[in-house]
Parts: sequence; C-alpha cells; structure tokens
Amino acid sequence: MTAMNTEQLSVDTIKALSMDAIERSNSGHPGAPMGMADIAVVLWTRYLRVDPADAVWPNRDRFVLSNGHASMLLYSLLHLSGFGVTLDDIKAFRRLGSPTPGHPEREPHLGIETTTGPLGQGFGTAIGMAMAERHLNAVFGDDLVDHRTFAFVSDGDLMEGIASEAASLAGHLGLGKAIFFFDDNGISLDGPTDWIFTEDVAKRFDAYGWHSVSVDGHDRGAIAEATDAALAVGDQPSLLLCRTHIGHGAPTKQDTSKAHGSPLGTEEVAAAKEAMGWPVDESFLVPAEVSEFFASAMQENAAARRAWEASRDSVFAGSPEVEDLWGRYHSAPTAGLDVPFSVGESIATRAASGKALNTLAVTAPGLIGGSADLSGSTNTNIDGSDHFGKETPAGRNIYFGVREHGMGAIVNGITVHGGLRGYGGTFLVFSDYMRGAVRVGALMGAPSIWVFTHDSVFLGEDGPTHQPVEHLAALRSIPNLWVIRPGDATETVEAWEMAYNRTEGPSALVLTRQGLPVLDRSAGGVQRGGYVLADGSDVTIIATGSEVWVALEAADILAANDISARVVSMPCVEAFDLQDEEYRTEVLGTTAPRVSIEAGVTDGWHRIVGDGGLSIGIDRFGLSAPWKDIATELGFTSQGVAERVMAWLGA
Amino acid sequence: MTAMNTEQLSVDTIKALSMDAIERSNSGHPGAPMGMADIAVVLWTRYLRVDPADAVWPNRDRFVLSNGHASMLLYSLLHLSGFGVTLDDIKAFRRLGSPTPGHPEREPHLGIETTTGPLGQGFGTAIGMAMAERHLNAVFGDDLVDHRTFAFVSDGDLMEGIASEAASLAGHLGLGKAIFFFDDNGISLDGPTDWIFTEDVAKRFDAYGWHSVSVDGHDRGAIAEATDAALAVGDQPSLLLCRTHIGHGAPTKQDTSKAHGSPLGTEEVAAAKEAMGWPVDESFLVPAEVSEFFASAMQENAAARRAWEASRDSVFAGSPEVEDLWGRYHSAPTAGLDVPFSVGESIATRAASGKALNTLAVTAPGLIGGSADLSGSTNTNIDGSDHFGKETPAGRNIYFGVREHGMGAIVNGITVHGGLRGYGGTFLVFSDYMRGAVRVGALMGAPSIWVFTHDSVFLGEDGPTHQPVEHLAALRSIPNLWVIRPGDATETVEAWEMAYNRTEGPSALVLTRQGLPVLDRSAGGVQRGGYVLADGSDVTIIATGSEVWVALEAADILAANDISARVVSMPCVEAFDLQDEEYRTEVLGTTAPRVSIEAGVTDGWHRIVGDGGLSIGIDRFGLSAPWKDIATELGFTSQGVAERVMAWLGA
Repeated sequence: MTAMNTEQLSVDTIKALSMDAIERSNSGHPGAPMGMADIAVVLWTRYLRVDPADAVWPNRDRFVLSNGHASMLLYSLLHLSGFGVTLDDIKAFRRLGSPTPGHPEREPHLGIETTTGPLGQGFGTAIGMAMAERHLNAVFGDDLVDHRTFAFVSDGDLMEGIASEAASLAGHLGLGKAIFFFDDNGISLDGPTDWIFTEDVAKRFDAYGWHSVSVDGHDRGAIAEATDAALAVGDQPSLLLCRTHIGHGAPTKQDTSKAHGSPLGTEEVAAAKEAMGWPVDESFLVPAEVSEFFASAMQENAAARRAWEASRDSVFAGSPEVEDLWGRYHSAPTAGLDVPFSVGESIATRAASGKALNTLAVTAPGLIGGSADLSGSTNTNIDGSDHFGKETPAGRNIYFGVREHGMGAIVNGITVHGGLRGYGGTFLVFSDYMRGAVRVGALMGAPSIWVFTHDSVFLGEDGPTHQPVEHLAALRSIPNLWVIRPGDATETVEAWEMAYNRTEGPSALVLTRQGLPVLDRSAGGVQRGGYVLADGSDVTIIATGSEVWVALEAADILAANDISARVVSMPCVEAFDLQDEEYRTEVLGTTAPRVSIEAGVTDGWHRIVGDGGLSIGIDRFGLSAPWKDIATELGFTSQGVAERVMAWLGA
Repeated sequence: MTAMNTEQLSVDTIKALSMDAIERSNSGHPGAPMGMADIAVVLWTRYLRVDPADAVWPNRDRFVLSNGHASMLLYSLLHLSGFGVTLDDIKAFRRLGSPTPGHPEREPHLGIETTTGPLGQGFGTAIGMAMAERHLNAVFGDDLVDHRTFAFVSDGDLMEGIASEAASLAGHLGLGKAIFFFDDNGISLDGPTDWIFTEDVAKRFDAYGWHSVSVDGHDRGAIAEATDAALAVGDQPSLLLCRTHIGHGAPTKQDTSKAHGSPLGTEEVAAAKEAMGWPVDESFLVPAEVSEFFASAMQENAAARRAWEASRDSVFAGSPEVEDLWGRYHSAPTAGLDVPFSVGESIATRAASGKALNTLAVTAPGLIGGSADLSGSTNTNIDGSDHFGKETPAGRNIYFGVREHGMGAIVNGITVHGGLRGYGGTFLVFSDYMRGAVRVGALMGAPSIWVFTHDSVFLGEDGPTHQPVEHLAALRSIPNLWVIRPGDATETVEAWEMAYNRTEGPSALVLTRQGLPVLDRSAGGVQRGGYVLADGSDVTIIATGSEVWVALEAADILAANDISARVVSMPCVEAFDLQDEEYRTEVLGTTAPRVSIEAGVTDGWHRIVGDGGLSIGIDRFGLSAPWKDIATELGFTSQGVAERVMAWLGA
C-alpha cells in the first residue's frame, strides 16, 4: 500500500474507532474527531515530536485538544501511536474507571498533557505551555529546550472570552512556536455558527498579531504546506483556519449539528463505513499497516528524543552549572523560607507575601508569574528580574494585562508544562473571573499558586464591587484547592512555603490590602491549618487573616472582664481538616463555647463552631468607605467583637 | 462667555470636581475623569437624551460608565445635569452612606443605570441594554422605543474576555444604536499599555463587524463629528477610539500610571488648576455658566421627553391594544403558573423548566432570553418565537453563542433596561464562567433569571470537567442570589413562579439532566424554601433536587426496617432561612436526628443538620460513567442512602 493510501487508511481508522467507541458507550461527540481526522493524521505522523517510550520527555512537543469533547480523536491517536491507551480502554470509553473519560483528563504518562473540555481552557493552557517553552528556551538555549506547542481548537473555544484574552497576549508576545488548528466546521450545538458567530476570525487574529491562514481541512497536502509555513513564522503564533466538515463521511449527518454531540446511530455508522470502504461488520478495527505507519513516525520521534538526550548530556558534561541549574528547575519543591519581621510592626500580608515570594524566588528559579495588571497592588513582582516580553523572554515577571481568566489558564499551562512553577495574582473579588481555570487546575492537580489580595471589605473605599465577601467560602468549596489566609506576615511566609511545597494541587493565598501587626508567635502552625495562638478556657475564638489580631485584642478586652479566651488562628481549613481528630480536638477544645470571626459570609463556619457556637461574619455585600469606618459599622473592631462575645455569653 | 468657552469651562469644572473629591477622600482614580472630560461634555450636552426631571423615562438614552473607577466623572456629570447627586454627596465621595461610592452602584432615579467597576461588566451590560432597545423597538415601533446606548470603556474593559464575547455578538447582531467611546490613553495600572496590549483594536472590532474610527479625544469638534458619523451607521455598533491623555492637565502626572489610581496630591492639583486658569484656592467650584449650560441641555432633553410622552399618549389613544401590551411589558410580575404533570411520570427538571418557561412566556411577553449554545440541552427556547437576530429582532430566543460571561452581563443589561425580563441558561458547571456577572447582578438587585441545568455528577458520561459538585455551595454564598433546586417537575413550576415574581434580585434555577419521577405532593412549599414531604419521627432526611425522590425511596426502605423517616424537600435554602423560627423548627423537627442529602459538596449543610447530623454529599470531583453507575459508586441510590442512614443510626 502506498504511503498516501496508508495515510487515508489512518484517517479512516480514526473515524471508525471514534464512531465505534461512541456507539458502544452510546454517548459522545463523533463530529469533531471525524472532521479533524485528516488534520490529526498530518500533525501526528509528520510533525508532532512525542514518544510513547518516554511520554514525559521534557523537550517533547506539546499537544492540546482544546475542544475536549473530541476526546475520541485524542484517544485514537494515542492508541495508534503506542501510548498506554489500549483498545480495551477505548472500548471502555466513558465507562467507570477507564482512562478514557468523556473529556481528556491530564495524564502525562499516557500523553494527555492537560485536562480539557470546558471550552477555551485548552487554548489558554496551550499558550501557557508555549510561554513556558519560550522562557526555558531563553534560560537554557536551543540545545536543551526547543519544542512547539500544537493545539486543536473549535469555534466554541474561539467564542470564549478566555481564548480572546490568551490570544491577545500570545500575539503581543509573538509566540512563534504556538501553532493552533481551528476546526472551522460552521456548526455548533445550537445550529450553524452563522446564527451566532459571523465575525471575521482571521482578521481578528491578525489584529492580535497572529499569523493566520485558511486551508481546506481535508486536503492533507495543503494542511502540511500551511503547517510548514506556520513553522517558518518565527515571531508570531499561528492560527490555521481549517475548513472542515463536521462528521466528515457520515452520509446524512455530515455538516449538521446532529453529528456534534450524539452517537450517529448504527445505521449511519454502517453507511459511513460502507462509504469509506470499511468492513461494515468490524468494530474497533486497526489495520496492521496503520499501526506500522504510526510506529514508524514514533520511531523517528524516539530518535529525536535520543538525539536531544545526547545533546543534553553533552551540554551537562561541558557545564556542571547548567546541569545543576536544570536540576533546580526540575526537582521537587522543598522550600524552607526564612523572612524576618519585627513583632508589632504593621505590614499588610500582601506586602509580606511580596517579601516571601522574593526570598523564595532566589532559591526557586523556576518560579515565574505575575498579575492581571495589578503587580504593584498584589506585590507579585520578582525584584531584579525583567518583565517577560517578546524581547526579554528570560524575564520572570509576567504582565498578563487585565485578563484574569486567560491568566488562570496560562499559569496552569506554565505549571503543567514542567520545569516551571506558575503563579498569578489579582484582587480576591476577581477570582470569580478566573474560576473556570482555578477549577480545572484543581481537577487536574496542577499546583499553580494564586495570589489573591485585597481580601475583604477592608480594602475600603473601592466599595462593594471590589470587596469580596463570598469568595473565601466559594473557593473553599472547590475540591483539591487549598485556601490559605494568613493572619500576619510570619504566617504569610509559612503559607508561601506550604503552597510552594504542595505538588498535588493548587493553593490560593488570600491576603490583605491593609497593614496587620506582626504577631508574637512561634514558627510553624500554618501547615497544620489551625493552631492555638493564645490559650484560654472560657471561650474559644477562631479567626483567620485580618481577624486574628482583632481576636487577640478582643481576648485582652475579655480578660479585663474576667473572661479567659483562647484564640485559634485557622489559616487553612482544608489542612486543618486533614489533621487527626486528637489534634483538632486539642486545638478547638471540648468544653468552651466557640466563636468564629472572618470578614466574609459565615457559610461553612457552623461546622467548626458547632450548634452552640457563634459565627461573626459579613452575610451581605460591603460598602464604600475608609476601612476603619467599615470595621466600626460592621462590628469588626476589637471592642465590637469583645462586646458581641460578651453579650452572647450573657456576661 | 461664548458657547465654546463655556464648554471648556465645563470640562475644567469636571476635572476640578474630580480632583477635589478624590483629594478630599484621599482615594480614587483621577486619571480617567480628567482624560475623558472632553468626550463627556460633548456627549452629555450635545447628544445624550436624559432628563433629571424624570430620570427613569423609558425612552431615555442609556449611559454606562464601564470604566467604573472613573466614577467621579459620572458623579460630576450627574451633579451638573441636575440629577439628585448634590455637591455634598460629591464631598462625601467614597464615605460611608454616601450615594457616591468608589464605583457607581445602580440607582436609576439618580441616573446611574447599572453597577460598574469590575472591568468588562459595563461593556456587556450596555450591549444588553442595546439589545433590549432593539427588541422593544421591533415590538412597539419607533414612536414608543427609539433610543441610543452610549458607553465609556477603557483598555481594561477591552482586554477582558467578557467584552470580547459581548462585542462579537453585538457585531453579529448589528446593534447600530450602541455607541462606545474607548478611552485610549495608553496607560494601565502596571504601566504603559504597550507592555501588555499591542493588538490593533480598531481592526479587531472591524473583524467583529463594528464601525470603528479613531479620533483625538480632546478635540471636541472631532468627537462630535465622529459621534454624528457613528449615529449615521444604522446597522453596526460603533467604537470611537478616542486618543486621550490620562490625567489630562496634570502637569507632571499626565500620561503616567501615577495619574491612574491614586489622588494627584495637593501640589499637583494646585498646579493643574493653575495651568487651566482655575482659582487654586477654591474647591468644589461650579461656575454658574456651567450649571446654566448643562441646564439648557437638560431643558432640551425634557422637551424631547415630553414629545415622547405626547407621542406615546397618541399611540395609546389610537390603539388600546398597544397600551395594554405596553402595560404588560412594564408591570410588576405576578405570575401564577399552572402546568399539569402526572404523578410518577419521569421527567427531567430541565424539561419541566422548559414547559414552565413556555407557559409563563404566554402571559409574560417581556420574558426574553436564551442560552450559551445549549438551547436544546437547557430547554430555554420559547416555542413559536423566532430567534433574536439582526433581521428578526422581535424574536425572543437569544442565541448567545459559547459566551457565558457575555451572556451574564447582557441578561443583566436586558433586565435593568426596563420593560423586559432577561434569562440565560448554561450547564451548572459553567456558572463559574459567568460568576462575575451573576455577582454584579446580585449586588445591583437585577432580577435576572439563570437556568443552570446538568446540575450534578448525574449528567454522567461527560465526566468531571462538566460535573458540578461545588457550584451549589458556591452560588449559595453570593448574597442576594436565590438558588432554587427543585425536586421534581411540579416544584420546578413553582420555582419559575418564585424566580419570576422576585423583583429584588436574581434567582438561579438548578435543574437535572436526568429524569426524575413526578412526586405526589400538594401545591405550594417551594416559596417557603423547605417543607415536609413525608412525615416521620425517627430521623429527618433533608434533600434537594434529584435527591428528593431518592430520600423518599430510602424512607420506604427504612420503614420496612421499622425506622420512621420524615422527608423534607428544601429547594431554596435562602427562602427557608427567611421563614420564622417556628416554621423552620416545625419542618426540621426537634427530636429526630437529621440527615442531608445533596449531590454536591457538603459545605453549608452542617448548619441545617446540626452537630449530631449526617451530611451525605460528594466532597470530591466526579467521574465519567453512565449516571446510574455513578450513583452506585458514590452511594446515591435509595438503597445506598438507606443503608448509610441505618448504619449511622446504629440500626
């Protein structure tokens, strides 16, 4: 069989596998795998440098399927390429416990680089990967880091604001090694895209500074030419607008929204197979020449991988410093942070965070990030480092612009790329804007670090539009995200240490705008989530963040009224919940009634204070005023808290 | 003084007022008010048809300050125009209790159409207003509805994805009466915008289908010419890219980020005043001729308003049907919904929601909305109505495209426009994508209705990327948002009734993908948030949504084991909390231990079940599998629940 015929056979194999798996599970999206099969075969057999023998080889090309509903396309490609996705796994598509869920879930050892499905996330994450490559390339040079990032994207991805944000930044940065293939099939779930999406996509991406070109998405020669041209453009990301037919090859459903999100049905599948000369009665058929064709491509990739390893070894042999540096970028985090503060001095935890970040940045060279146009306010700059720009890719300060959601996905992409650790900052209230990315990061276990400052109504005059009240509760509700709200500068340092050393998921540092006194406390405690800061027997006051010193002062007032108050600082509820019961009971006590204080909604605190307890919080939106006026108005002064506790105790 | 001089004097007055207020409060953003003062004076005195004598006149032009940090610009304009913002209010800028908070908060009677500040929200909300106008114009004709929507937007707005989404849709719809002024000052908080924002904005908006033109933002003649030209373009929204100087007139801080977000300082203010020939020692000065100049413009507007009233009266006199219809669009909601279902039939609450919506839509002609490319899945189409399109603006089915955040702001804009009631639908998991808009809607008390379907892991095969677990808790944490998760079709009808009749804030309907049995229950109960569905004395099981029938079946199993279980349906925790204590105690009981069941994180349920209670939930991400397999795996079958309860009771 000629190469051209084998290529066609490969396309047909992917279509048949996708149809078969979706029929078998009676659930899935056949349209995109069939429509993009031609593009996929060209990319995976002629360009994409990945190697199933070492799926996580650092210099591999990255592939992101942003239109994650086309998961059967990816699973088919992984299977044909010899990654650990078996035919049985494909037969168990969308079944309990299979590695082939409805949307791809990050599993680098299987060749699944990132979790996708929520539209636009993959687009932004792929941009983050390309930024990671650009930075590491600047640090280590072409011999060690020089790969491309390829992504498949749909009209849905391009409609999402997160993709607009990431695209604008990518164009600004001139990320020449990012090559995106747009499945321009003219069909969305609701019907033809001309009902909703008539913008000139090429022109829009031109405006962002991308190289864009239209191509017939079923003409494999043309796809290869366009890919070659895109690869030749060094200083612009590329968008290949591939005109495709959704459900390509389905006799009656091609080019209709019926091919999008439902199985084609046995009749249509049979007719599609017949039309492409496929044995109608065979399911999950992989012709030997297709396996050989892919194996041959992967052998070339393995050679490329070995060549890279040789090149790396030679660099390392010539320069132990580079080897050492590479090791520091690629080793597990083990930060031990020491940043001195004087007890009693007033310092905002955002400022303490800036100091902690800068201390950490010295020993953790792979730490890279920035903020969504709030670098000064969020204290997220690394001193002495450049900004990460087109001409200054070695800079570690990323200016994301006012693009929170894009930042979220990009930071996830930087983090899951490997070699780097991404962080991103904005005001806590705007965590809402990036929640989609925070969630996907938590789901895929990406240890991104979020720096959320201006963490309560006490940001003051900017008023309720900018004052978070529900955000602590809302973030705590996300599984696998640790929310850490330190009570002073020293807790902030421990919080950074904890977030940085965490590898199984993201952490959100929640920090004040206003100054807080540095507390007289022993080191440690934050890691356990909650600990006793001052002992007492009549009442236990549990506080977080800016309410910790208020609780301590309130305890003094209570003491003057013959009430002995224990004060517990609880910077991380998630970590506290993981402690053994003995410790938790020891901290919270068993006899004294409990009070929680937190400048936010009281949701979640009842569980800690119990039925007899009191939760002091802010179950309403905030107000615009100087922060001390707000504290008085809402009863969050030491005196106000002490009085409230005394009244409640009946004292 | 000549008109031209008075115009300049007006510009200077706005600059001086803004500087003075920000100095006095020692907080605020002087740069944008100073940079946009020329544009503002042109727009407000030559074009904008608003009337302080009747601030909520239905056919007024709408003005949205999307860059809400420029609030002093709006407050200055409102004061000069004779709206109820006094000089004392301006002196109390950003102080407790003033109507002049840091960012504008919706107060239509003062001329503040919508709450802005979180960037991009105003952009999308203004597009929603323009869509509302377009629709009402199609329904009622030019004599009754014919106004423009003007918005001021910043580079930050344009970087936000939400604005990209709204802009793409607006271009698609050809909203000719939307005229947006971009404050193109080249400066953001982090520094010059060319650090982060080098896209070709005009080209990008051309790609969306907008009319765009660049103009010197300090050349008032040129601004007027460009505005005239924009108004002449009937079938495209317009973006006027106004090249401005941030902090225009501040001798040393103009054109720097120092003018952006901090007071200029007394010296700089004095120097700025001196440079523009302003009495340096005067604060909060409003020259009489400026007051007269604005008064004269407003007199013309009052005449326009009276002319509209006359025209309306004449239309009504000629057609009582139109008057009646107008009344139905503009009256307070008083839905009483009756949709029949047969006990025991299986129907997804999303499907019941579609029926309720369609029943309501008959008597509520102002109900208009749609979904983010999931109309079929969310059952949000109004049968028999067209889709809202450029050529079919009378259609009530809006196809938002895959643009959740844009949809959120647009629906808010439709709702706060008046005359219409907006709704928007997507999968519950994607409420994350639009949370910024949901929050602003709750903050400003816009009674938008959100239709969130596919509300749990039981959506099945699409897997954890699409399965909400934390979203109920996260939405409940937002103040003034009612989260309603009905337990069957009949509760769903009541939920729609409740959401529609609510005027003080938004409601989120949380609905299943999978079929649920129609329960044998009496009408009522949902309005009270929670009620007893089946009585019992040994244990009280509290359930929401798809867990209600599971609880009822589990109660049957418990009964067979001599355990008498009460089942409480609690579709709306917020409404339940508003009931008096007697009712709440009656429903929850005082003696039997309590169990909650909800297919989501258990956050928040401890407060209901108490210290001795049991919360059955899903404190983890979901999994990809058929929904019944998931139910078995996670213990959410009737049998699983009954066994868990028995084990817990020690029975």
